Amino acid sequence: MAILRLAVLGSTGSIGQQTLDVVRALPGQFKVAALAGGTNADLLARQTKEFDPEFVFSKDPEFARRLVADGRFLDILKMAAHPGIDRVVIATSGMAGLEPTLAAVKAGKTICLANKEAVVCAGKLITAEAKKNGGRILPVDSEHSAIWQCLRGERQKPVRIILTASGGPFRALSKTKLDNVTPEQALAHPSWEMGPKVTVDSATLMNKGLEIIEARWLFGVSIKNIRVIVHPRSIVHSLVEFGDGSVKAQLSLPDMRLPIQYALTYPRRQANPELPKIDWDGLSSLDFEPPDYDKFPCLKLATWAGLKGGTYPAVLCAADEELVNLFLAKKLKFSDIARNIETILRKHRAVTRPDLEDIMAASAWAKNEVKKLTE
Amino acid sequence: MAILRLAVLGSTGSIGQQTLDVVRALPGQFKVAALAGGTNADLLARQTKEFDPEFVFSKDPEFARRLVADGRFLDILKMAAHPGIDRVVIATSGMAGLEPTLAAVKAGKTICLANKEAVVCAGKLITAEAKKNGGRILPVDSEHSAIWQCLRGERQKPVRIILTASGGPFRALSKTKLDNVTPEQALAHPSWEMGPKVTVDSATLMNKGLEIIEARWLFGVSIKNIRVIVHPRSIVHSLVEFGDGSVKAQLSLPDMRLPIQYALTYPRRQANPELPKIDWDGLSSLDFEPPDYDKFPCLKLATWAGLKGGTYPAVLCAADEELVNLFLAKKLKFSDIARNIETILRKHRAVTRPDLEDIMAASAWAKNEVKKLTE
Repeated sequence: MAILRLAVLGSTGSIGQQTLDVVRALPGQFKVAALAGGTNADLLARQTKEFDPEFVFSKDPEFARRLVADGRFLDILKMAAHPGIDRVVIATSGMAGLEPTLAAVKAGKTICLANKEAVVCAGKLITAEAKKNGGRILPVDSEHSAIWQCLRGERQKPVRIILTASGGPFRALSKTKLDNVTPEQALAHPSWEMGPKVTVDSATLMNKGLEIIEARWLFGVSIKNIRVIVHPRSIVHSLVEFGDGSVKAQLSLPDMRLPIQYALTYPRRQANPELPKIDWDGLSSLDFEPPDYDKFPCLKLATWAGLKGGTYPAVLCAADEELVNLFLAKKLKFSDIARNIETILRKHRAVTRPDLEDIMAASAWAKNEVKKLTE
Repeated sequence: MAILRLAVLGSTGSIGQQTLDVVRALPGQFKVAALAGGTNADLLARQTKEFDPEFVFSKDPEFARRLVADGRFLDILKMAAHPGIDRVVIATSGMAGLEPTLAAVKAGKTICLANKEAVVCAGKLITAEAKKNGGRILPVDSEHSAIWQCLRGERQKPVRIILTASGGPFRALSKTKLDNVTPEQALAHPSWEMGPKVTVDSATLMNKGLEIIEARWLFGVSIKNIRVIVHPRSIVHSLVEFGDGSVKAQLSLPDMRLPIQYALTYPRRQANPELPKIDWDGLSSLDFEPPDYDKFPCLKLATWAGLKGGTYPAVLCAADEELVNLFLAKKLKFSDIARNIETILRKHRAVTRPDLEDIMAASAWAKNEVKKLTE
């Protein structure tokens, strides 16, 4: 078994750190050949010391200077496309994942994709470039990993994808009470441990909306055949329905290391004693309920943007990203996120078949609109 | 797409009739080339008229005579091995399925196996002959079809198989009340429509015990890694757990036509509007509980016989078949089934590596023991 050479983009974020946990738990299987971190230079320095990668990228100017002096600095886009890398883990958060993802698939890389914004904004471009250049996209999101696992060995497309949603921390809250929730409450997710952006997106259900659009591109199933059911315990990670009425589901305790590992070791499955296992004596009930579109309008907005296509999903993503940051900085109420996204989507004049430039322009426009609406 | 030529053995039973329902629902895909029925000559005559098979077998002497006169009579063992047949559906109930199954795999046939007693009694022989002669066993039992679907495309064996059990009609009954249940009550299964033998076996949980042994042979997983959980609604048909802790499950509304069709059309999946579909708006809860081994000792007895191996499973099957018939004829109490099986298993002097003759002898011995104990 050859050692797989990994580039981990976003290594200091939640998924990046858990990727390195998987690498530690499976010694002798991977070489962390490249690391790209954000502004947490301390953690990136520790990771660099531990894994001794050949290439490092950092957004922190001082750390970057030191890397250049050592001859180790490599631009993140070059890292994503570097011939010495077998699999590129794209764990950067938000819109920042778009350009590295595109660079990697253009270079024909196999990518383990944890960033959903890239595919949401530019799914057509990314999947077309992957196809053209022999690139492969292995999903890391737990829901898409579940779907991918369920489709393993199947020759036909599913007739329906059923994405499960935990419902977030505010599932049981009334619509009026939702107005006054704090960032601290939004960040206390009941079942998943994730970074702040995706945790707030889980609380608004925007995360599930983005996953609908992501699934559309990753599995080639039209949005009207993708539905969401709320499953608070987050044990069933998604389901697929076939033409004969048979349904397959993937289950596991909520721990991102499993879908990360599945993408890293695919097509093998690997025993890892650190991963939690379902207790079959303790399994009592798996509960499901329909989502409340009225209480969580982001789910509706994302579905609408996904159906419309063009530059709408990029506007959705960019506006959401800015608005979530403003909410985390306590400059907005929780319900302002959806309200402002709707205003901006309504105002947008979309490009139907956008190239990367159109997508970047739409995204910049949306961010500017957020500024105008909230200043 | 070539038309598949089918032999349906046990065509007048519940699975046989539902097999013909699937054939009717998918016109132009199958030719029913051979039918073998039991003593229900009227139904077999109607099926013969409708499907115009080349070969027919009947246990009814008068109907058999007519078939011989028409030149259509073919012995069931020859039918199972006939070169003009692509897939042999083995839907005969009970021990009678053993010899046709063995004949079919010896002839290198692809069989759609609904009979579980054959594999339970002679799993080692049947799987060895299939391997040697290029025969394939496609499971039709809903639980084994679920496992087979979940293993599709996987390269590694599962570390655990989790068989679901409806729990039967007496799940909520106290142990003392179980003593006085009637055949009518036992035949009123809450979720599945099946023949009388398997329905009573479902009420005693012997059916699940036999399925443990069946799974052991079909999927090469040792009995200690096969467990049972009770799932009253019969929507999750079984689950498999992999080395990485990931679990896959197959779900569908309880209808035997789906696993029958899956085996008939494999590797294709085929839309069939007659098959019921899960209503995703209505899905609320999937409940699980551990089985009550004390109330349903047959499950324990079957596990024990499976672990011991040799001729024990044949004794288990044969004794159960006789005792279920006596219960249906109101000559025994419900709890007498397990009690007598235990007595007979304890008395049996097993052959460790039995050939077919040993298995038939053990089975005949067990039937005689039932006679001695109950006369």
